[in-house]
Amino acid sequence: MIILGLDPGLGCTGWGVIAASGNRLSHVANGQVRTDAKAALADRLVALHDALADLLLAHRPDAAAVEEVFVNDNPQSTLKLGQARGVILLAAARSGIAVGEYAPRLVKKAVVGTGGAAKTQVHAMVQRLLPGVRITGADAADALAVAITHAHHLASARAFSTPAS
Amino acid sequence: MIILGLDPGLGCTGWGVIAASGNRLSHVANGQVRTDAKAALADRLVALHDALADLLLAHRPDAAAVEEVFVNDNPQSTLKLGQARGVILLAAARSGIAVGEYAPRLVKKAVVGTGGAAKTQVHAMVQRLLPGVRITGADAADALAVAITHAHHLASARAFSTPAS
Repeated sequence: MIILGLDPGLGCTGWGVIAASGNRLSHVANGQVRTDAKAALADRLVALHDALADLLLAHRPDAAAVEEVFVNDNPQSTLKLGQARGVILLAAARSGIAVGEYAPRLVKKAVVGTGGAAKTQVHAMVQRLLPGVRITGADAADALAVAITHAHHLASARAFSTPAS
Repeated sequence: MIILGLDPGLGCTGWGVIAASGNRLSHVANGQVRTDAKAALADRLVALHDALADLLLAHRPDAAAVEEVFVNDNPQSTLKLGQARGVILLAAARSGIAVGEYAPRLVKKAVVGTGGAAKTQVHAMVQRLLPGVRITGADAADALAVAITHAHHLASARAFSTPAS
């Protein structure tokens, strides 16, 4: 099963693709999509959407997941993030895959074991859980963490749905 | 010149199409796109995007305009609005038209003559400026007001660019 994790942002969207086979995870690819801060908003959204559509076509994930938004104190930042996130959710939904959403605390708990873990701990665990991964940057690391969370979630959902015989 | 005005919202997006010929404006169509509050966010965004794409295809506007966002006190509302707005800006940009943005005060000033006008005054003036219009609802009226503002803006831009001979 191929899982795409996403850490949305208008300026920089992190993405990470992993393969999950039972409890075994492996890294496929990760990266960051940047948009030109000097370009018009609509053009940045088109660039982001097209980059996502390319990724979905290249990796054909079976599922996608994004971090639930930690709403910013700055409403203008929240609005920007919302605009980027809307376009990302649209691209994923149009490719016919369901998009899971996980609260930041849940991602930390799934990857490190505690909801209060620091970013650096999350990144170190991503590195350990996906041997050989070369992480492009902080947003890509967050995206891989979301993908790992989704893999865990799907695995435990399967475990629970196994008939107790 | 055909102008599409938009009043974005995740639950209800108002739209209005007008034709501008010099200083003469006429109504073409208006309506409201509603999405199912019980559906998944990604599916609502797809529904909104597809409805917009259909509108753009049906009316082939030369220009579009949206109201600049009055950022809400509620960050979750701002996020929802951002997601809807992102998808709408994407749909317009992909159809190859530029999207103008106007502050709410500017829309009121363009339509009523004063930035502090009440909603009801704006709607009454939309009715007067577009004889025979049947307004679908409050969001459609706001969208028509934005379209009228964009028409005024384009007309005055043309007036200023006429050589003084």
